[in-house]
Amino acid sequence: MQALRRLPGVGVKSASRMAFHMLQHDREGAQLLSQALQNAALTVRHCSLCHTFTEADVCATCLNPLRDHSKLCVVETPADQSAVERTSAFKGLYFVLMGKLSPLDGIGPRDIGLQKLFARATDGVVQEVILATNFTAEGEATAHVIAEALKARGLQVTRLARGVPAGSELEYVDLGTIAHALVDRR
Amino acid sequence: MQALRRLPGVGVKSASRMAFHMLQHDREGAQLLSQALQNAALTVRHCSLCHTFTEADVCATCLNPLRDHSKLCVVETPADQSAVERTSAFKGLYFVLMGKLSPLDGIGPRDIGLQKLFARATDGVVQEVILATNFTAEGEATAHVIAEALKARGLQVTRLARGVPAGSELEYVDLGTIAHALVDRR
Repeated sequence: MQALRRLPGVGVKSASRMAFHMLQHDREGAQLLSQALQNAALTVRHCSLCHTFTEADVCATCLNPLRDHSKLCVVETPADQSAVERTSAFKGLYFVLMGKLSPLDGIGPRDIGLQKLFARATDGVVQEVILATNFTAEGEATAHVIAEALKARGLQVTRLARGVPAGSELEYVDLGTIAHALVDRR
Repeated sequence: MQALRRLPGVGVKSASRMAFHMLQHDREGAQLLSQALQNAALTVRHCSLCHTFTEADVCATCLNPLRDHSKLCVVETPADQSAVERTSAFKGLYFVLMGKLSPLDGIGPRDIGLQKLFARATDGVVQEVILATNFTAEGEATAHVIAEALKARGLQVTRLARGVPAGSELEYVDLGTIAHALVDRR
């Protein structure tokens, strides 16, 4: 139970429920999970090009010749990357910051590898950098810093559009979102 | 992520959050959890007296000479046992059914080891059997079947009291509970 509580979002009650469930009904699952955790902790590392998680030196996405190597999408985490990837709306490459600028937590440009991003984006092949950091204060600040630096290097820099979420009713959308959707209307 | 989804209550989103968290921030935790799961799946078995989880042949509770061997508390699961144990209100021994009678799911007296319970309860030392199965339809039915069988063998059989939960206001307690509390008033 103690070890299960290291998982994010798992408290005392869930840990005990998980432990008893695995012992009573799914020992095979416990062994599978044990093996998977062990393998992951030992073999998963960062792609030397885009920094995402991979077991190889360069990840499969970066090596894929069918993808558009002139477009680079910057995201905060592999989870964000996988969200963008699931949309099937982007066929370019990624750069995963593995974090965001957060001066209050002492996380500066060096901690999220901005120099590596700048080197990656100015390889001569990349034409457009799409900033897909989160629309939070820190995500916006990170996007701003990257945009300034890359524009100064002569690259085209774009940002994910802000607007009304698909399937939502205006009545229930917050005013800031509607205001942004009005400004960015097309 | 697939392996993490074997844990109860973990869906696609939680599994991905857990996997990314462990990879990014807590590889040591992943290794610890891997080891703990492996050990548990291989070494944890059932106490030959009370059926609870233990790594020995007989669990520490059953072996404890300071406990009252004349009282036997019957619970459905080790989690229930640990809930009773945390109250510090019971100093006797336990019998853990590892389930409950549930004809609709095809779980009969044999599947929850009722014969073993009857043999255990009629060892000559046990005087009172306290039924602490859940107050659900199946828990009640299980308690009823055990009560009938043990009374026929001349044992004293009691059931956990039903009533208003500690700290609750009558206004918000359901009527069935209040009715039971009235009937069982003391």
